Amino acid sequence: MDFTDLNQEIRTFCEVRDWGQFHTPKDLAIGLTTESNELLEIFRFKDEHEQSTILEDSDKRGDIEDELADVLFFLLRFADLNDIDLEEALATKLEKNRERYPKEEYKSSNRKYNE
Amino acid sequence: MDFTDLNQEIRTFCEVRDWGQFHTPKDLAIGLTTESNELLEIFRFKDEHEQSTILEDSDKRGDIEDELADVLFFLLRFADLNDIDLEEALATKLEKNRERYPKEEYKSSNRKYNE
Amino acid sequence: MDFTDLNQEIRTFCEVRDWGQFHTPKDLAIGLTTESNELLEIFRFKDEHEQSTILEDSDKRGDIEDELADVLFFLLRFADLNDIDLEEALATKLEKNRERYPKEEYKSSNRKYNE
Amino acid sequence: MDFTDLNQEIRTFCEVRDWGQFHTPKDLAIGLTTESNELLEIFRFKDEHEQSTILEDSDKRGDIEDELADVLFFLLRFADLNDIDLEEALATKLEKNRERYPKEEYKSSNRKYNE
Repeated sequence: MDFTDLNQEIRTFCEVRDWGQFHTPKDLAIGLTTESNELLEIFRFKDEHEQSTILEDSDKRGDIEDELADVLFFLLRFADLNDIDLEEALATKLEKNRERYPKEEYKSSNRKYNE
Repeated sequence: MDFTDLNQEIRTFCEVRDWGQFHTPKDLAIGLTTESNELLEIFRFKDEHEQSTILEDSDKRGDIEDELADVLFFLLRFADLNDIDLEEALATKLEKNRERYPKEEYKSSNRKYNE
Repeated sequence: MDFTDLNQEIRTFCEVRDWGQFHTPKDLAIGLTTESNELLEIFRFKDEHEQSTILEDSDKRGDIEDELADVLFFLLRFADLNDIDLEEALATKLEKNRERYPKEEYKSSNRKYNE
Repeated sequence: MDFTDLNQEIRTFCEVRDWGQFHTPKDLAIGLTTESNELLEIFRFKDEHEQSTILEDSDKRGDIEDELADVLFFLLRFADLNDIDLEEALATKLEKNRERYPKEEYKSSNRKYNE
């Protein structure tokens, strides 16, 4: 399955519920940030070892998968309703980042390119 | 191209820079929320008509594509490093939402299932 | 009561639980964004009239107050642990914004100063 | 200076620019999450030692104070426009949290009360 099929499945899900009326760019972006934060909240105050343990717990792993699915849902929906090609956008951004972060200079570095 | 190819491209990008050491679950989730908020910020205080105008402006559209690409990058990276199948996660979540939101009851409704 | 008293109350709350060990700058910033998003989620997909209705519903109003309190908690805690004077920071920022947004030019405008 | 004076200063700042028309609950909540994320982004991928170094750097400390001021601005503005008493909200929430997190049981614990 690729993006086209997933988009179609999401479109059907939304259309039978007539939810397009709520899916403004702003509200879909809100969808992305609220769901991302539900994911982030799971790791709040947790050190690296605890983060690993969380990912090994099947209940919590299910919660994490749920939140990632919600992020993917809003990401695909935003792109689909606004005619944005996500694969092309990613390819363009990776190319830009290859230039911003030359591999020799940024090897093992967590600096931002504009820092 | 499908998720597998995109994952491989992102993996190569990160590995040549030795960035895996920074990509804890917590920091990748931070990636998702910070990039989602850069997208959301574009629409802050804007009404629906202004949101449409923004999406028709080629510079701003480029910014939007950039932010969506960043979200996709962190989403794929999180899933790849933690062995999560995003397509399966989405299918599972859509099935759950079909039950939570029966189409007759939630037609044209923006209520949450637990409200 | 002013910021000093609130800070002291929060400090006591945290110290008796020995929670300072979890309160890194990163995790307190996560606190701010996760709690802000719980607030935002309440208004997701809602139009202006519905937003007003939500604020008139006593249960939902209680939820909103709860989320604002959580944001205030993490804001005060971040500032207190890192010796930042919030009132001074706000005064400085308002002064900067008075220059960035001259009142004649930005009257009734929702443009960003750098747009 | 206390909350009342700060509220008045913010109110004047907004009124002379006629910005109340943009300050819906949803957009003010967006203000909180976007500004919180600008703060969080500063600490992305940084370990604890690096977080401390950032707070000792005077330029970056200025950026942090700026973001905290923005969060405080939107927090006070939300509360002021919707007649919410932040001090009371915080007192109520601390009381609730004292019950949710009995100090003996949650001493040195980063568990959530509902985990």
